[in-house]
Amino acid sequence: MAESQPEIPKQCKAGVVVNEGPDFKVEVQMVDVPEPNDDELLLKLNCTGLCMSDVHFMMADWAVPPMSTFGIKCAGHEGAGVVVKMGKNVKGWKLGDRGGVKPLMDVCHNCEHCWTGRENYCQNGVYTGLAATGTYQQYIVSPAIYTSRIPDGVPDEVAGPIMCSASTMHRALVDSQLKPGNWVVFPGGGGGVGIQGVQLAKAMGMRPIVVDGGAAKKELALRMGAEAFVDFTEEKDVQAKVKEIADGIGAHGVLVTAYQAYNDSFGYIGDRIGSRIMCIALPPAGKINLGNDPNLFAFKNLSITGTLVGTMQDTAAALEYARRGLLKNICEVRPMSAFAESVQQLKRGEIAGRVVIDFNRDN
Amino acid sequence: MAESQPEIPKQCKAGVVVNEGPDFKVEVQMVDVPEPNDDELLLKLNCTGLCMSDVHFMMADWAVPPMSTFGIKCAGHEGAGVVVKMGKNVKGWKLGDRGGVKPLMDVCHNCEHCWTGRENYCQNGVYTGLAATGTYQQYIVSPAIYTSRIPDGVPDEVAGPIMCSASTMHRALVDSQLKPGNWVVFPGGGGGVGIQGVQLAKAMGMRPIVVDGGAAKKELALRMGAEAFVDFTEEKDVQAKVKEIADGIGAHGVLVTAYQAYNDSFGYIGDRIGSRIMCIALPPAGKINLGNDPNLFAFKNLSITGTLVGTMQDTAAALEYARRGLLKNICEVRPMSAFAESVQQLKRGEIAGRVVIDFNRDN
Amino acid sequence: MAESQPEIPKQCKAGVVVNEGPDFKVEVQMVDVPEPNDDELLLKLNCTGLCMSDVHFMMADWAVPPMSTFGIKCAGHEGAGVVVKMGKNVKGWKLGDRGGVKPLMDVCHNCEHCWTGRENYCQNGVYTGLAATGTYQQYIVSPAIYTSRIPDGVPDEVAGPIMCSASTMHRALVDSQLKPGNWVVFPGGGGGVGIQGVQLAKAMGMRPIVVDGGAAKKELALRMGAEAFVDFTEEKDVQAKVKEIADGIGAHGVLVTAYQAYNDSFGYIGDRIGSRIMCIALPPAGKINLGNDPNLFAFKNLSITGTLVGTMQDTAAALEYARRGLLKNICEVRPMSAFAESVQQLKRGEIAGRVVIDFNRDN
Amino acid sequence: MAESQPEIPKQCKAGVVVNEGPDFKVEVQMVDVPEPNDDELLLKLNCTGLCMSDVHFMMADWAVPPMSTFGIKCAGHEGAGVVVKMGKNVKGWKLGDRGGVKPLMDVCHNCEHCWTGRENYCQNGVYTGLAATGTYQQYIVSPAIYTSRIPDGVPDEVAGPIMCSASTMHRALVDSQLKPGNWVVFPGGGGGVGIQGVQLAKAMGMRPIVVDGGAAKKELALRMGAEAFVDFTEEKDVQAKVKEIADGIGAHGVLVTAYQAYNDSFGYIGDRIGSRIMCIALPPAGKINLGNDPNLFAFKNLSITGTLVGTMQDTAAALEYARRGLLKNICEVRPMSAFAESVQQLKRGEIAGRVVIDFNRDN
Repeated sequence: MAESQPEIPKQCKAGVVVNEGPDFKVEVQMVDVPEPNDDELLLKLNCTGLCMSDVHFMMADWAVPPMSTFGIKCAGHEGAGVVVKMGKNVKGWKLGDRGGVKPLMDVCHNCEHCWTGRENYCQNGVYTGLAATGTYQQYIVSPAIYTSRIPDGVPDEVAGPIMCSASTMHRALVDSQLKPGNWVVFPGGGGGVGIQGVQLAKAMGMRPIVVDGGAAKKELALRMGAEAFVDFTEEKDVQAKVKEIADGIGAHGVLVTAYQAYNDSFGYIGDRIGSRIMCIALPPAGKINLGNDPNLFAFKNLSITGTLVGTMQDTAAALEYARRGLLKNICEVRPMSAFAESVQQLKRGEIAGRVVIDFNRDN
Repeated sequence: MAESQPEIPKQCKAGVVVNEGPDFKVEVQMVDVPEPNDDELLLKLNCTGLCMSDVHFMMADWAVPPMSTFGIKCAGHEGAGVVVKMGKNVKGWKLGDRGGVKPLMDVCHNCEHCWTGRENYCQNGVYTGLAATGTYQQYIVSPAIYTSRIPDGVPDEVAGPIMCSASTMHRALVDSQLKPGNWVVFPGGGGGVGIQGVQLAKAMGMRPIVVDGGAAKKELALRMGAEAFVDFTEEKDVQAKVKEIADGIGAHGVLVTAYQAYNDSFGYIGDRIGSRIMCIALPPAGKINLGNDPNLFAFKNLSITGTLVGTMQDTAAALEYARRGLLKNICEVRPMSAFAESVQQLKRGEIAGRVVIDFNRDN
Repeated sequence: MAESQPEIPKQCKAGVVVNEGPDFKVEVQMVDVPEPNDDELLLKLNCTGLCMSDVHFMMADWAVPPMSTFGIKCAGHEGAGVVVKMGKNVKGWKLGDRGGVKPLMDVCHNCEHCWTGRENYCQNGVYTGLAATGTYQQYIVSPAIYTSRIPDGVPDEVAGPIMCSASTMHRALVDSQLKPGNWVVFPGGGGGVGIQGVQLAKAMGMRPIVVDGGAAKKELALRMGAEAFVDFTEEKDVQAKVKEIADGIGAHGVLVTAYQAYNDSFGYIGDRIGSRIMCIALPPAGKINLGNDPNLFAFKNLSITGTLVGTMQDTAAALEYARRGLLKNICEVRPMSAFAESVQQLKRGEIAGRVVIDFNRDN
Repeated sequence: MAESQPEIPKQCKAGVVVNEGPDFKVEVQMVDVPEPNDDELLLKLNCTGLCMSDVHFMMADWAVPPMSTFGIKCAGHEGAGVVVKMGKNVKGWKLGDRGGVKPLMDVCHNCEHCWTGRENYCQNGVYTGLAATGTYQQYIVSPAIYTSRIPDGVPDEVAGPIMCSASTMHRALVDSQLKPGNWVVFPGGGGGVGIQGVQLAKAMGMRPIVVDGGAAKKELALRMGAEAFVDFTEEKDVQAKVKEIADGIGAHGVLVTAYQAYNDSFGYIGDRIGSRIMCIALPPAGKINLGNDPNLFAFKNLSITGTLVGTMQDTAAALEYARRGLLKNICEVRPMSAFAESVQQLKRGEIAGRVVIDFNRDN
């Protein structure tokens, strides 16, 4: 590779998990900068988002093997940075190109899911921050053909969280088969994930209704494109209110990003025929039982479907909406010095929106 | 109307409900031949199918008002016959044309469901044999624009049951979005409704697997196009067997026509990503709870949808498959003298396939 | 029918065609108010739009029999009014309801097109203002099940032209299978029909590019939602400019509403794979030959499709966009005294946008 | 790589192009066995199909640079063989696995076409036998993630031609959006490519009509699943006959695999609304002009679309139909000694079906 390279340090900053398990903590340490293999890019990340799944991986409380099984010390799957080195077989990238890292670090590229743009369901997918070093590390490697390009005009702190939450919401909206003009309910849509769905739904011509609590969330939801906000702290009959807003019939779709909302969803569709409920939130195993009578499905032509993270295409589409200004930054950017404590806050449920850590700011 | 008409009697044969309720019976009586209104056809039916919903309407045990509320004495919604008289505003029909009567006698023709070929969900639909005189009566009226044309080559005793069961299965297959080459399981598919689904699925390029019990059903299922039969009376692990047949992965779809099979359905999909379970059977209220964890939907991209009776288009499509010989007669035709007792047998669960009553044979 | 009726006059105002043929003119005359048949509504129209097809029907220069063949004296197919009388078999309407009349006065309601929401292709459709009295007459009859309901909040002068042009554009956008985020070119999109397409495309999340000439059209197009305007009076290479705007690749779709633009369309798609050209404008027979090499279709996965008027569903959807304020009034409303001359101006190509005649204003 | 390898020779047999250009010939020579790079498989091919595009590449008469520009001496893109060596980064394959090589040797794997299962339109695709060594060579390298797996039960001589023609036809059938029960015409469908389309269409529930000439083709077409055969050597009005067969209305689709048939296609659709013409055959540039009036598209809701080779998914689907016995072998297998002359026969248009060369048989 003839291109001259920026100076790459031997070591870099990282938010390393210590004491994996229920009482884990994150410590900022210096770790070795990895070497890209022949097909990989070495990315210097400018920032990483923090996501609740990171906490689950570090607590090792999900039904997957712990990070340590894979020898992984850094969680994180919302990274945005720049290419600083490339393996010898890499094509189509050059030094200085911007690249993003998603929940899926890599897929097999040769199965029916990978062939058809449904690679988010590749059964050989490698999860970032679990089975591959995650974006809590400043320099990481990423397969050239599965790294997302970040377009000019989308700052890294916006691009980071798009890799996970906005991409996931885009996939859910596409899979929902909902159409322009349809009413779509976002229970808990004033939060970090839901609000990205609200913006995307608006950009796709749908009519978002947010169900959430409090004046701040109302202001945010309406500003971000919700056509209506139903405040569960004020409204006596939330389901009746949603139905009233949605033509007096009911919503065409419900995108459930907060697992507590699953059972309410059936009320939001009201008497609408052919509506769709999308399962996005992953409740603790056994916690939620949708509990439906098949008659309901038949009499209302109701569908329930679930989706899991976004695809390359979803990520690209979400980034393009961001570039056009239709998906706005709602993140709080914090320096490295706040890394460890921010993760603890996230674990304790004290973070409302989305926190992004800036690798380039120490304080 | 200038066309000469065949002689129409004042009275005709009918299977009239007596003692509506749990102990109802059907009596063959002579009743008045109705007069078509300006937009209606008068059909002389040659036969009517008997369907379990007829029994429910006559028992008045479903969550709808009893037949008597609407002044209706004849159940039935699977009629095939010929036009013998037409109202003055009728266009596009002539005396002698063959016509069929379906579960929906009429719809509003001017709502979003009616506009879009989803009129089976018209909220002003009139159910035949409940709110309009049903096909247990030899001469009945039917709106010209909602009567199905029966093509040459499809005998009336075949056309009758198509009006309900085959049309319903066609709709379920279309709504399932399943594709040629997909594995589709029919639990209880050796029965009257399921076997029509099996034939239609085969004709549409899918690969039907029937789960049912006994050698007779096995023979029938395989003859009618099932690619595999799993006998629950012999197979220890039915779900594992279905998965093994379906590429070792699991079925792409399950069409549930027997409500007892709902919960097994989740086993038939195995590890297949993106499979679909179609709710067709209507269990007694509260009897079945699908009971699913949302994680299942998300991790497998699983969808559950329900459908209800077929549309005009589904009925036409099913009749066309019958005309081509791809949907075969599986009915037992009985004379009028067997009408009353056949309904009792149906009520007692003693009828395996489908019974059709021939109005033209007394014995 | 027990409802009391408003006083209905014996005669009403109408714009009657005189001297059918190349030198026709329209004269305002008093004509008999028609009587609705059993299934019809009598509508008192408040306004009618004027459309170029009216001129063709009155000139009798299209490949259809002349109006006089059907005994029709009034053209027009963009009417908005109120129900003043109903036939005895009408259901679902009441006096005072608002109703609109479209290019199709009626369809057969029982063919594969009518069953599937594609009734705009019913081969027994009756064209308004050609084979049935058109909306140039103040009181007209319309079949109850094929009259469009006009929602509150949409003034009659807006609803009238929606019956034809906006409904047609909605159908073309739906049939195009274009998606949110796609670039769609409207050649001549600063005109009366195109601008409705621009607004609808915008409302559906697409990115409209208008190609037209002059500052007035530019201002209108951008105000109505075009993301870019390419002025053919100023731009040397219009096709290159469109391609540049559309990501440097080319447009995903072209909606051709001006027949002169057909051949330029192939330039607008540039190097885009899978783009779609929609044929909406009807050129004089033999005037335009698309003239394509099949290699182009194969190498670019290009599709060309055509559509014809909107369906009931399209009209309802367009009216709903208008109710939401996303489809704005761009018509000039003129009194009855301007009726005759306005039609002559239309014939001479002197009307830029859309003219609506108000039956309630004489001057 | 720890797996023991079969003995790989230094040199192997190949059909090398000599005198590239109009008077080219193929000579069987011994050439060096290539070395797979880190991500490639080395395949030992058992056979290669011969395809007309090979001839064009060797004649250098298409609008692409000649093979020699890329340093390529072997044409061919229908190869079936077995993995004998693997690069060090290859995952998911093992020695002895069966693999096939298609018209596209590789794609970029990271563009919107590659992400969405439309990688047959990747703008960085590398064409086999033009820009990469083709399947006329016994040992060739192929990227592991873009090599097709050949299932047990499909012999190599069947698998070879599926890589190109059947895969292409599968793509065309999918892109056509045609449905089970639809009439689809294959002009020239008695030939090698068309007959694969006929079998696939049949397997997908469609109703194929073959238009071709002669008793042998009739027998073949009907045996392979055509529902009707129209012999242009006998039938006076072929278009009328097709229309008569297709319900008296016309075909729902036409798949044009012989460029001479393009203009006749418009006759085959008759009066069918919403039919689709698929451009598959690539005529010499400027030879065919579809020449359509836009009115035709609008009045018949007609669509024309083109497609180019199949995707990984199409190839897998076609192989699976072959495994199930629904896509039968129609090839003539010839030994290496017939290689050179067979290509000349192909060039002279003397080969009716499909010829496959067996690398393992010298005579």
